Amino acid sequence: MEKSALQKARATYQPKLPIVLTGAVKAVEGQPTNSVADQEEIKKLFPNTYGLPELKFEKDPAPAARKPINVGVILSGGQAPGGHNVISGLFDGIKKINKESRLYGFLMGPGGLVDHNYIELTSNIINEYRNTGGFDIIGSGRTKLEKKEQFDKGLEILRELNISALVIIGGDDSNTNAAILAEYYKSIGAGVQVIGCPKTIDGDLKNDVIETSFGFDTATKVYSEVIGNIQRDCNSAKKYWHFIKLMGRSASHIALECALQTQPNVCIISEEVEAKNMSLDDVVNYIAGIVAERAARGNNFGTVLIPEGLIEFIPAVKKLIAELNDLLAKNAAEFAAVDAADQRQYIIDHLSADNAAIYASLPLGVARQLSLDRDPHGNVQVSLIETEKLLSEMVGKRLAQMAEEGKYVGKFSALHHFFGYEGRCADPSNFDADYCYALGFNASCLINAGVTGYISSVRKLTKPAVQWIPGGIPITMMMNMERRHGAMKPVIQKALVRLDDAPFQKFASKRNDWAYNTDYIYPGPIQYFGPAEVCDQPTLTLKYEHQGYKDRH
Amino acid sequence: MEKSALQKARATYQPKLPIVLTGAVKAVEGQPTNSVADQEEIKKLFPNTYGLPELKFEKDPAPAARKPINVGVILSGGQAPGGHNVISGLFDGIKKINKESRLYGFLMGPGGLVDHNYIELTSNIINEYRNTGGFDIIGSGRTKLEKKEQFDKGLEILRELNISALVIIGGDDSNTNAAILAEYYKSIGAGVQVIGCPKTIDGDLKNDVIETSFGFDTATKVYSEVIGNIQRDCNSAKKYWHFIKLMGRSASHIALECALQTQPNVCIISEEVEAKNMSLDDVVNYIAGIVAERAARGNNFGTVLIPEGLIEFIPAVKKLIAELNDLLAKNAAEFAAVDAADQRQYIIDHLSADNAAIYASLPLGVARQLSLDRDPHGNVQVSLIETEKLLSEMVGKRLAQMAEEGKYVGKFSALHHFFGYEGRCADPSNFDADYCYALGFNASCLINAGVTGYISSVRKLTKPAVQWIPGGIPITMMMNMERRHGAMKPVIQKALVRLDDAPFQKFASKRNDWAYNTDYIYPGPIQYFGPAEVCDQPTLTLKYEHQGYKDRH
Repeated sequence: MEKSALQKARATYQPKLPIVLTGAVKAVEGQPTNSVADQEEIKKLFPNTYGLPELKFEKDPAPAARKPINVGVILSGGQAPGGHNVISGLFDGIKKINKESRLYGFLMGPGGLVDHNYIELTSNIINEYRNTGGFDIIGSGRTKLEKKEQFDKGLEILRELNISALVIIGGDDSNTNAAILAEYYKSIGAGVQVIGCPKTIDGDLKNDVIETSFGFDTATKVYSEVIGNIQRDCNSAKKYWHFIKLMGRSASHIALECALQTQPNVCIISEEVEAKNMSLDDVVNYIAGIVAERAARGNNFGTVLIPEGLIEFIPAVKKLIAELNDLLAKNAAEFAAVDAADQRQYIIDHLSADNAAIYASLPLGVARQLSLDRDPHGNVQVSLIETEKLLSEMVGKRLAQMAEEGKYVGKFSALHHFFGYEGRCADPSNFDADYCYALGFNASCLINAGVTGYISSVRKLTKPAVQWIPGGIPITMMMNMERRHGAMKPVIQKALVRLDDAPFQKFASKRNDWAYNTDYIYPGPIQYFGPAEVCDQPTLTLKYEHQGYKDRH
Repeated sequence: MEKSALQKARATYQPKLPIVLTGAVKAVEGQPTNSVADQEEIKKLFPNTYGLPELKFEKDPAPAARKPINVGVILSGGQAPGGHNVISGLFDGIKKINKESRLYGFLMGPGGLVDHNYIELTSNIINEYRNTGGFDIIGSGRTKLEKKEQFDKGLEILRELNISALVIIGGDDSNTNAAILAEYYKSIGAGVQVIGCPKTIDGDLKNDVIETSFGFDTATKVYSEVIGNIQRDCNSAKKYWHFIKLMGRSASHIALECALQTQPNVCIISEEVEAKNMSLDDVVNYIAGIVAERAARGNNFGTVLIPEGLIEFIPAVKKLIAELNDLLAKNAAEFAAVDAADQRQYIIDHLSADNAAIYASLPLGVARQLSLDRDPHGNVQVSLIETEKLLSEMVGKRLAQMAEEGKYVGKFSALHHFFGYEGRCADPSNFDADYCYALGFNASCLINAGVTGYISSVRKLTKPAVQWIPGGIPITMMMNMERRHGAMKPVIQKALVRLDDAPFQKFASKRNDWAYNTDYIYPGPIQYFGPAEVCDQPTLTLKYEHQGYKDRH
């Protein structure tokens, strides 16, 4: 691998570890835990791994000599900055336990375990990847570990390699499956511990015990960099409205964090749209109102941040999509025979009145996407809908009406952006480099403590890294029962943006100023070598959450 | 303005100046110059400013006390990183001449001069903007200074403010107009010097005497950062082809520099497509061939860089567009009456056979854009064509054919990106911060030397900044006659990518390796505080040009 100058310079960075992990540690058990909800059902589903205590680590004044262990590691799901540091922390941790310990990486995600594709991760390989972005050290994949046959097939290779612990680095679903796998291996006495690590740029794997998932910090900093650059352009040329869609399938944490970082004129938060039962027209009118008011003040430019998942949070659109899926499934043959030019009218004629009205209001391109671009199950592919163009087109139409009514005088030119892939594999910020290394190192301590079904936890993250508190959380503690594909399943609760929490409250208290004034902040690119106030700041989401927490307690 | 942590830390950066500019200087004249072509015609058009000598600066051992001067400054055209530093260098320069000197900024581009919109740029304002991106200190605009009435109107405000020199920061067109303005003011004895500064992220304002335009360095580094991040994602997930369009209206310098920085699987260079008379199908087949070969090696992923202006460099498409413009202009009424569903066939029936065949091969969406999205003059709006989607769609179709013929086995999923606005207003790299500050400071020296019709020139740019050579180049020296809007005009030659020059040669010698192997480089974000090998590198284009120059001489 040919390396950039930055990669070479960055390779020498030594991530900061929580002070307690710098020496030998012993695990200290807290009180037995309960799941956040549905305790009885979850207890029944996890007889061997439910109710375990939280763990903390303390210095071990008299550590015993420890045997080598073989550990397997898997990267699961979408990329997030810092994955390589979780693995290098884990590697350094098990080597510290015993120099003869070995680390195996399963290739291209959980499928590598099932299909027995793996490599041994030696120090030569690990050193190539320290402090770098990407998951390319072993690749990632979206195969879900859910079935007994997969577990058994995986166990074959684990036994062959004498692996006694498996670390799964993933999001809420992957950690849910890690808990199920831990329970299964425990129930059959397989002798394999399973430990999870909290990953996702979306920031929706967090709760009272996991303060943030890794990658969220770096990804939102990259998006804030380019949003800030666009805002500076916008404020220099003063002639465009930039509609910027940001990755994040369900939760709007990314859009919210970027809004706090850059102070755009508009940011839509899906969870608020749903909570207020806003229609698509409500959202369009809200944006158009701000465009018109800024125009009245002489500013025909601005920025709008839109979370990727918005469309599915608009209750009326959700209903429309559901009826459309039904309609087109039931009348597939009849619809296929309809002339292309008449399909739109056919749909309008066959939908219920409410949904027909919404469908008729959509721009042609989007209406076509809704009726034609369908997945193999016949469902609308919501992720393909270009929400940023949908909104700007509808805002443009609304402004034209307002102009006719004498309520808008101005010029509206829109440009569109979608940021997602730009941030998932960025070189990790100091925060993520440290946090990930600590998560991985800490996982080795959990392995050494002999536990299973735990997620690696590092807390007090707004303090300097040396003061962070490492430990272990039983994954079942974070679970509740939810309906998935028609059946109730035990899953880790997904953390959506809470409208009563400090980050959103902060945003809500400022957004009117940001809308009408031009209060842009230009964060610039992530820095690795400068002063601490530039290089070592956690997200504003984390800062406000901790402040808010303090305020309330 | 609320500032980010990086902005605050960066505000204290003191740009490096060429050593000669750190003391008092005197101008030293070289030989009289000639324009690069069409000498007689250009001499006739610029009787007062043609044939001036190149200027260099030397230390002035016995500098006389100097009177205060009032100077005006204009930002013209698209934003480029470093514009604020040109202005702060100019400010510091004229204050060094005499503390009582004043700097006036005309607002929102050349229109500010004509319309008498301006502010005085005081040290308080200047200090807010040092080392920042954007043109927001005074805004920019695209009004062209071309007419006598504009020049006369401008002179009114220049006289009112007692301004004796005007600095125009712009691209090739703006500097051409600066030369015309200089000639005019000289011819009427207005007593106003006009000095240009070479700006454009496109990198197409360069020649034997101007080594690069400012902004190119920073913009290409920002694009290379996000391209690198996408490539790391691509190489981790191993399932997408990313089609990435890069800003740059005519020349492909941006795409070429980003390719040298990131080593993508494919990069199309418009100038090569034109030189080889490639058809759209040739380009599609070239990309599809690489996709198929990579698939044969098990890699169903990759990256393709596409210069924004590509479509206009494909000779056959250029001809098609010309005939289409003609056809739809002549038959406007008849075409308007054609049913939407029949328009495509109408066009195919009325085009010449060659062009009809190309038109018929285009994806529907693009065909529709060509026939419907027309500017007020009835011409196709080429810049609106989503070339990245056009190419990926056609590549997809070609691969489907190849699969039927048994020449391709693989999976092709494409994602699309367009980067432009993300880089134009980024915080300037050290190179651009230094270069721009030097250009502005140097402009004050040209003003002090009493000359007009010169462009600020700083050379030897691959050496450390202290060794750079400042001076002045008569703008007429860079001119030739070109047909513009139907008439021959004196203009600065636009620098396209030269296929015989070192940067392209380097790329051409490597691209097959990059296509079939996965040799991605991940440059990461611009760094301001780290080691020199990370923070102080010029573009590879500049490095190879200088090396190539050395090799040849």
